[in-house]
Amino acid sequence: MLKRRYEFKAEFFDTDPMGIMWHGNYVKYLEMARCKLLDEIGYNYIKMQDNGFTLPIVKMDLKYINPIYFNEYFIVEISVIECDITLKFKYTLLSKDKLTIAKANTTQVAVTLNKETLYSIPDDLKFALNQ
Amino acid sequence: MLKRRYEFKAEFFDTDPMGIMWHGNYVKYLEMARCKLLDEIGYNYIKMQDNGFTLPIVKMDLKYINPIYFNEYFIVEISVIECDITLKFKYTLLSKDKLTIAKANTTQVAVTLNKETLYSIPDDLKFALNQ
Amino acid sequence: MLKRRYEFKAEFFDTDPMGIMWHGNYVKYLEMARCKLLDEIGYNYIKMQDNGFTLPIVKMDLKYINPIYFNEYFIVEISVIECDITLKFKYTLLSKDKLTIAKANTTQVAVTLNKETLYSIPDDLKFALNQ
Amino acid sequence: MLKRRYEFKAEFFDTDPMGIMWHGNYVKYLEMARCKLLDEIGYNYIKMQDNGFTLPIVKMDLKYINPIYFNEYFIVEISVIECDITLKFKYTLLSKDKLTIAKANTTQVAVTLNKETLYSIPDDLKFALNQ
Repeated sequence: MLKRRYEFKAEFFDTDPMGIMWHGNYVKYLEMARCKLLDEIGYNYIKMQDNGFTLPIVKMDLKYINPIYFNEYFIVEISVIECDITLKFKYTLLSKDKLTIAKANTTQVAVTLNKETLYSIPDDLKFALNQ
Repeated sequence: MLKRRYEFKAEFFDTDPMGIMWHGNYVKYLEMARCKLLDEIGYNYIKMQDNGFTLPIVKMDLKYINPIYFNEYFIVEISVIECDITLKFKYTLLSKDKLTIAKANTTQVAVTLNKETLYSIPDDLKFALNQ
Repeated sequence: MLKRRYEFKAEFFDTDPMGIMWHGNYVKYLEMARCKLLDEIGYNYIKMQDNGFTLPIVKMDLKYINPIYFNEYFIVEISVIECDITLKFKYTLLSKDKLTIAKANTTQVAVTLNKETLYSIPDDLKFALNQ
Repeated sequence: MLKRRYEFKAEFFDTDPMGIMWHGNYVKYLEMARCKLLDEIGYNYIKMQDNGFTLPIVKMDLKYINPIYFNEYFIVEISVIECDITLKFKYTLLSKDKLTIAKANTTQVAVTLNKETLYSIPDDLKFALNQ
């Protein structure tokens, strides 16, 4: 299935008094990877909204394995693991020397602009994700 | 002119590797004080939107005098210093023992929901701020 | 087991283009509830550090059930569900009219200031949590 | 004097209910530009700390001229405007089609790790900035 790898850097404002990235800030990098992937397949949040739906997160889990220090580069590896009723992405964060930093999963559902839940990911998004 | 004092606490996620509040996070507390004041006078951002305008920040300056450490309580003193063409607030952040932590100013202009700038703060907001 | 309820308000800077709290910002309110509880039992992050350890998050999961809108008050109900090898908290976010907004869990382990993992929560913290 | 241009993109988590970047989030991009410049001249925050000092922000001002929308690319142009008693950077944020989005200034002072203010920017940093 669709898989991408993106590189990021831990910013000063991301790090806490322990000198490491604050656990809540990982969520931003998951979103950045997800948005980059959606941009690349030509179906980003703007196109979704133009097509009458949004894709809110309904579930998220993270496992923190090794810390990320200020100014360190890291990789977010993102893969689609389900695209049917819901859209699920799996994420692995890796340090430059291939150490696993964290693992995460997100689940999204399609919701119309009138806030009605759709019980399936719209076909054209499915199609774009399966290229 | 209208003046209020609100108490806040420096959160763990606000603090940086120096163990003090990251300078960009002060902006959140200015907004929290501003929104509390607007709630109290009965004219918050929701009412503005219902009345067809928003109040974007066009200018902001901050002066950092003493650090705020994790878990420390501090006070944001907010006063209206102009409410005519623009709305200006002045802020003083004080530690519990009256040490000045920071000083700040913000300037806002009224903009219609169609993004046209109004060259005056709407009268009913002026009125609410002058009670 | 120990259980507390704290009230918060969704801030303007917390909300996204959908007008609802951005899913990553919930993590801040889990931390605020956790830190308030630890303050109340007299064993906060500062005391931990003085006693030679920190308590990093190693796992976190969230389930988003209903949105929180700007300026809405909500409650974070936090309970200790394990305090032995790891410290686990369970969180339920509720709207003012008792609608479930979200559910979450966090797991923390004790780590010395030299970054050695302790395979048990220190006894005096256990004791404080069991009062 | 030293001048650099860096490109960034407005993220979903940066944008507020108006669909534009929240004014407080600009501060992160000023810091990202500043840290990139310091990395490039080989004198970043880590090297400063190794050399016994930090460089806290003591003053900051921003002027917001045009909004940045979600997913839009923008440029931060950063220049050193003073490097003597204090270190001052000037920033201009530009849209892809050269529209001025914002202007900003920051002032930093050197402080030893024991929190004593130095009344001059250390010579080797001055030297690195003047290359």
